[in-house]
Order: sequence, then structure tokens, then C-alpha cells
Amino acid sequence: MNAIDSLSGTTPSVPFGGANDATPWLADPREKRTRKLCHSLEEAIRRSGLKDGMTISFHHAFREGDKVINDVVAVLASLGFKDLTLASSSLMSCNSPLIEPIRQGVITSIYTSGMRGKLAEAISNGLMENPVHIHSHGGRVKLLQDGEITIDVAFLAVPGCDEFGNARGTGSHSACGSLGYAMTDARYARTVILLTEDLLPYPNLPASILQDQVDYVVRTACVGDPAKIGVGAARMTGNPRELLIARRAADVIEHSGYFTPGFSMQTGSGAAATACTRFLGDKMAAQGIHARFALGGITGSLVDLHEKGLIETLLDTQCFDSQAAGSLARNPQHIEISTNVYANPASKGASCDQLDVVILSALEIDLDFNVNVITGSDGVMRGASGGHCDVAAAANLTIVVAPLIRTRIPTVVKRVTTRVTPGESIDILVTDHGIAVNPSRPELRQRLIDAGMAILSIDDLWQRALLICGEPQPIKFTDKVVGIIHYRDGSVIDVVRQILKEE
Amino acid sequence: MNAIDSLSGTTPSVPFGGANDATPWLADPREKRTRKLCHSLEEAIRRSGLKDGMTISFHHAFREGDKVINDVVAVLASLGFKDLTLASSSLMSCNSPLIEPIRQGVITSIYTSGMRGKLAEAISNGLMENPVHIHSHGGRVKLLQDGEITIDVAFLAVPGCDEFGNARGTGSHSACGSLGYAMTDARYARTVILLTEDLLPYPNLPASILQDQVDYVVRTACVGDPAKIGVGAARMTGNPRELLIARRAADVIEHSGYFTPGFSMQTGSGAAATACTRFLGDKMAAQGIHARFALGGITGSLVDLHEKGLIETLLDTQCFDSQAAGSLARNPQHIEISTNVYANPASKGASCDQLDVVILSALEIDLDFNVNVITGSDGVMRGASGGHCDVAAAANLTIVVAPLIRTRIPTVVKRVTTRVTPGESIDILVTDHGIAVNPSRPELRQRLIDAGMAILSIDDLWQRALLICGEPQPIKFTDKVVGIIHYRDGSVIDVVRQILKEE
Repeated sequence: MNAIDSLSGTTPSVPFGGANDATPWLADPREKRTRKLCHSLEEAIRRSGLKDGMTISFHHAFREGDKVINDVVAVLASLGFKDLTLASSSLMSCNSPLIEPIRQGVITSIYTSGMRGKLAEAISNGLMENPVHIHSHGGRVKLLQDGEITIDVAFLAVPGCDEFGNARGTGSHSACGSLGYAMTDARYARTVILLTEDLLPYPNLPASILQDQVDYVVRTACVGDPAKIGVGAARMTGNPRELLIARRAADVIEHSGYFTPGFSMQTGSGAAATACTRFLGDKMAAQGIHARFALGGITGSLVDLHEKGLIETLLDTQCFDSQAAGSLARNPQHIEISTNVYANPASKGASCDQLDVVILSALEIDLDFNVNVITGSDGVMRGASGGHCDVAAAANLTIVVAPLIRTRIPTVVKRVTTRVTPGESIDILVTDHGIAVNPSRPELRQRLIDAGMAILSIDDLWQRALLICGEPQPIKFTDKVVGIIHYRDGSVIDVVRQILKEE
Repeated sequence: MNAIDSLSGTTPSVPFGGANDATPWLADPREKRTRKLCHSLEEAIRRSGLKDGMTISFHHAFREGDKVINDVVAVLASLGFKDLTLASSSLMSCNSPLIEPIRQGVITSIYTSGMRGKLAEAISNGLMENPVHIHSHGGRVKLLQDGEITIDVAFLAVPGCDEFGNARGTGSHSACGSLGYAMTDARYARTVILLTEDLLPYPNLPASILQDQVDYVVRTACVGDPAKIGVGAARMTGNPRELLIARRAADVIEHSGYFTPGFSMQTGSGAAATACTRFLGDKMAAQGIHARFALGGITGSLVDLHEKGLIETLLDTQCFDSQAAGSLARNPQHIEISTNVYANPASKGASCDQLDVVILSALEIDLDFNVNVITGSDGVMRGASGGHCDVAAAANLTIVVAPLIRTRIPTVVKRVTTRVTPGESIDILVTDHGIAVNPSRPELRQRLIDAGMAILSIDDLWQRALLICGEPQPIKFTDKVVGIIHYRDGSVIDVVRQILKEE
């Protein structure tokens, strides 16, 4: 009866070889439960099979409070690894300790949404031989899908997980909230190592990262400082210029035609955007207009509106402050989403496609409404692509808010230093000196005028900036490309060149 | 600034071509939200790109109440499709209407966990040219991982979902509860079509199947009858033989050494197993022993223990009755898991590996403790592999419960008609005529004897069955293989041959 001969079909048949042939760990009742646990990061690295030339990844949910990226790279340096590609969902000012391992050749290639501080300065000044690849949050998933980024080993910081790796960003001491970035790495990485502060009893479910995505678990003293997640905009700005912009942006939304029951919104984390969320909340309460959902990075101000019943659901790819992280733990309709669900243009369904209104920031915006969120006007990288071009392309109404001038440097320019988001995706610019509507949206312009709002052309705003600041000196660049700016679909929309230092 | 020349690195660079080059649907505010909606199943099939020779899949969460499998195959037959492989997580008695499309060559190959009724009879009698592949629930995911099954189009019945495909098995009229099988198909299928009764407002989150896994959504009048999910064992059996077995099994667990605070259990859906759950619950309450989790198919009796605080967490891959489906909607620690998390031996972490005690059924069990859950003693297929060999291999204590004799047919036999689960995975057999312990577990035998329990050998039980029923007539088979039994690792553990009909 057991003879496995004469089987038809094209698939070669392997005869049964024993109950645990494919699962040798089941022979040991202890081993089968604890086989993922590593005593040290070094052990996890060894077991991961990481080799020179491979790609490692991290998430940046702890933002400036991250305690894992620098430490892991330092351990890799001490173990003698070379020529690694660093694919972090983003990098921050706190990552300046990476300069040394980059100099030593431990890391020779970088994919990231952005860079800040000394690391960004050093790279802008030619630290690396290979240019850094800048991607959007949605675009990163596309690069993973396309195999342009192949993560060999993901090192994912989590506040707490069980011995099998079921992990959440809430409920433990160092709560970062949403693990939206890490969820993507857990999905795409060949090998996943969790670094956790808390080792919790099995099963730690429901979880954001699931046991069937995790290879190894390492306990570590501290994965991050949640106090440094807050992007500093949680409390209401007192800056009259920011408040003016915020009020105007709220008025624009009110009269845009998109402020209708069941609308959806994304407001991000800038001071003006946060203030705008509050002004918009007042209008929602007064007019009885509730939003179906708010999307993206979630702040305390959005949580306030959710808890007042003004926003039904929060779709959260990143908690921008501890109030948001607390809400994620507490509110059942505060939902954690991966960056694939958030904004990948090649995902089967990105939530940004459902978005009505988004408020975005800009370092520069030009006469064609192209936006730069990466380089300062000195040509040095100091920002992040983030979800900017993702939601700008997808939303029905894309509003950029920015002061016309920042410390004598104009925001509205003839041509952006670096193009991150194409002007065709931007509908309106709101500044402290006036509002401009993209000529491609005449019906929108008319609605605002009908509501009694003064609308300028972007050329008017540029002229005004010129009048105040004068014509800026053109920056001089060398030929060396230090950064490649990927659009969300993976294509290259611009490059950043090394600045020519004049002695 | 925008020249994309002189980019170093090995990746070919595609220059930016326009904001919506990769996302043409974003140009139309309506299209971008509704692009997955199909007016008819025929439209969804056309858009899916399904072709002759491809593989289609279904889940069986509605069990005997399923309204989708037969209907979709009938539509495919009417559209003239041929030579399809049917990969359903399982098939039931209600699927007898598939006989005709199989006869017509619409379906020429089948992968399933099991079969019942007229379809099983017809196939056992040689309906198909190709043998049916029988797999376990965990093993199915392994076959998908290995590419032995490649799902081209999954047709997944859901009670409710939104226009992007965020779907749950609860909260709508035809609630089936856990979508544990469907979650796996949504993960592995090239194209996913949801058939839904309710079209809910976006975002229908949290969801079991997510928008980034779904291609098309079709509204349909009825996806299933939840009243027919119940496997008939929800209420306490009155059968004294079943009650005797259940009491004995509960006693075995109590004295096995595994009945300790924080233990875990799986009890399945059989009448004796369900009764055993209740008896065990009494022991847990009396002795203050709480379980960390119960796993697998979840019944109302497990929900009772969960709601009494005796089981902390329910890990649910399939709701066996409406009480379980109701609990999933209501109880936050009643957690839905995919079959990959449940039992795939090649998953990075299967919950069955964490399992202490499991109670399983058997159609036949032999002197080496091999178990048959597929064929009757007449050689006709009438059962399902299910999670049997998965949890048997993984649990610390695997108990088979069965009456020694069913309507004059012995359950304990010299050699099983078909081997599904290898004897090395079975620790104890509990029958109404006595208990036998696998000789590989002498310490377990001793513990039960020390507790005052009478332990027989399996040979004793076989002799007793022989004494009552006499020596059974051997079944005569032809050479034709009608079923291939895959072990959970994909290997072939046995085959089923066509019965020789004697005129």
C-alpha cells in the first residue's frame, strides 16, 4: 500500500522520510520553542549568514531616539564586515556615528528616504564613492518588489516581542507606536533579526510583525528613546507666521470642494500643518463634517480629532509623538499600516489613492510647482523624501505650505535645487505672503476666488521673494553625483551633485 | 540639474517619465478608488487573465455551507475553460456538483486537504485521470512556498469587504469567522478575486485580507450559509461511548505531565474531543490551571473556556461553529491566524510547534500507531488530512481518540488502509475499550500507571477488535492511483488506489 511507484503527474515525488525530516527542531521540546533566541547580537549575525557585500536594513520609527542602527553597524565594523549596503527606511541626525564605518568601507552604498545633520553634510561633501539613493516611503517598497533593493538581513528594533518574534510597537517601555516601516522589511527581508527590549510570553498576539516573518530574536538593553521620536510640533506653534499659513491652509481646504462629509486627509508633522489640523478640526466640529480617515504619520493633533469623533479611523504608518503611540495602543480604530498599504505605487492597493486632501511641506518650490524636500539652498542634503511624492501624486488636493522666506532664503525659487516631487502633482501653494494655484487646476482657483480668497500666481510670489531677498547666488557644484533621487516608481527624477568648496 | 547622466552603480537608471507613468489610474479621481470593482464574476475572470491549464483556488471556511466553489466552477465551465487545476483548501459533500465539470475536462487536477460524499466516491472510483493530491493544512502552504502549487487566480468568498478589498470574516450577515485559509491564498496567489456579500465603506480596517493583496472585488448575493459551518458537535454529545472516551482523554491529559499552568491545547471538532474540552475545563477550573492558548479550529466549547478566563488566547485558523465566529468578532484575545502561522513546517514559526497537548481523531489506527483519516475501511475516500499530521508531529503530547469499533468495523487495525500521519507522531490512543501508549513514550506510560490508570498495548486493543468483529476481508484494489497522500513536508507518505469493483 505504501509503494510510491507509478505516480502520474509531472511533479517529482519525494518519498516520506520521517516525521521530522524537514523539522529537526521538533525532536527537542525546548529547542522547538526557543530556537530563534540568540544570546548576543554577534550570535544572531553569525546565524543570519551575513557576508561582505550584502544588504542590511533598519527602520526609523524611533527617529532621533534610535539606539539600534549605529550600534549594529559598530558591531558589524568590529566583526570586520566590508562593502555592505545600508538600506534604512530613513536616517537622522543621530546617525552621524555612521560616518566612521562608511570611511572604513564597512558601508559602501546607502538607500534611504533622507539624511540630516553631520552624516548628510559629510555625504554631500563627497564622503562616499557611490551616490546615496534617495527614495520615497512608497517607492522603497517598489524598489524591494523590483529587486533593486534585496535585503539580506533586516535588523528590526521592537519594544517587545515573544520568543517566536510576534512583535508590537506598543505596550512595552520604549513604545514607538506603529511599526509600519518594519512591517515592510519583515515582509521582504531574507533573514529577519528582531532586537527587543522586552521578551514577552508566547503568544504575543495580535502583533504587527508575525512569527512567520522572524528568524532570530535578540534581547537588548535599549532599542530607542521614545522621548526623541516627537518631531517637536506636537504642541501648538506660537509663531504668528506659521499660524497665518495654517489658517490660510484650513480656509483653502474648506473652500476647495473637497471638504465634504466622509472626506479624508493627511497633514504630516510640520508646525504649520499641525496647527492647520487644529483649525480644520474647529471647522469640522462647527459644520458637522466628519472625516472617514486620516493617513500617514500620525500626530497628537490627529488623535485629538479622532477621540472627539471627528475622524473615524487613523491609518498610521508612523507615530510622530508619544500621544500617537498611546492612541495606537488604546483606540481600536487607530490602525497600523505598512508602507506597502500606505503608498507603494506598485502595491495592489495603496491608501494614498483614497486620499482627498494632503498638506505637505517644502524646502523649495519653483515656478513649475516642483518641490525640493532634500537639499537646502546651499545644495547640502538636510531633509527626507518621505511620503511627499507618493501622496502628492495620489491625493485629490495636494497643498504645499511654506513660509515665503526662511532666514533670508526664499522658498519660492525659479528652479528647485533638487526636484523630489514633480510640479504636476502639486495643486496649491500656501505661504504667509499669499496663495498660488497650479494653472492645471483652474476650477480649484475659481472656487477659492468665489469664496473671497485672494489668489496670486506663483510668479507673483517668486517676484516678491526676489524683492525681499535679492537674486540668490547660484551654487557651484562639481561633476560628482552624491545623491540619486528616485521618484516613487523607481525612475530617477534628479541627482544631487557635490558642492564645489571655494577656498 | 536634471540630467541623469554619469550615474555610478550597477543598476540601470530609468529617467522620470511623469508623475503617473506607473499609476495611470490616478488621473481619474473615480477610477482610482473603484478600479478593482467588477460588475460580474465573468468580468473579474476576464480581467484576471485566467487561461486554460492554470490553477484556481478556494477556501473552505464555509464548509458544507459554501456557495462559491461550485458556482465559480460552473461559470468557468460555461465560459469554456479546460484543463484547470483546482486547489481548494478542502472539499466537502456539498461539492458533488463538481463531478460534471471534472467529467467535462474543466478540472483535470485537484489539490485538497480532503473530500467527502459523492465527489469523493466518484474520484475513488476513478473519475479522474490524474490522482488527487491530498495535503495537510500546513503542508499546503509548504507546497505553495515550494511552487508545487502555483495559484494563478484565487476566488475567495468573504462576508464583507470594501472597494479596495479589505475583508473580514466577521461583522457581516454571512459570518464565517476566521479567514485563516483565505489569508494564505491571498498571500500566495498571483491574482486575488474577492466575492463578497457586503460592500462596505473604505477603510474596512482592521482586516484579515488586506487591500494590498486583492486585485478584484465582485459583489454576489450569497457567499455561504453560516448555519452549515457547524460540524454538528457544538452541543454536548449524549452518546455514552463518546462520553467515556472524552472522560478518559481528559484523565490522560491531567496525568500526562503536561497539565501545568500555562499549558496549551488543541482539541478539534469531533464529538469526543468537544466533550473532552468540557471535562478538561472542569479540571482546569477545579485545579486553577489556566491555559496560555488553544490552537487550530475553534469551537464554542473552547470559547466557553476562554470567556471563563481558563484559556488566555484562542489562535483560530477556522471557526467550527457560529459561537466561535461570534467570539472572534467580540473577544480581542480570540486571534485569527493564517495556515502559515498555524502549521506550515517550512514557515519561520508555526504555532503548532508551541503546542503541548492535542486531541486528534482517526478513521483507522494500526499496530505502529499510523493513522488514517482519509479512506474508510472500504478504501473509499471520505475524510480530510486537515491539520492532523502537522500538529501530531509538533505537539508534546499527541492523543488520538476513537471508538474501538464503528458499526462493526474496527478502528484499530493491523495496517491502516492509507497512512496519513506516521505512528512516530502519535503518543497515546484512547478508546472506549482501553488506552494504549506508544512504546516510544515509556515515561508517559509510567505516569499514567502511577496515576492508577489501566494501560493496554495497542496489540491488546487490536485483538479485542478482532474478537468482536472477526478478521476483516481485505479490500481489492486496481493498480490505478486515485489519490496521492502528501506528508506535511511535501513528501509522499502513501497513495490511494482505485477499488476493484466485483460484479
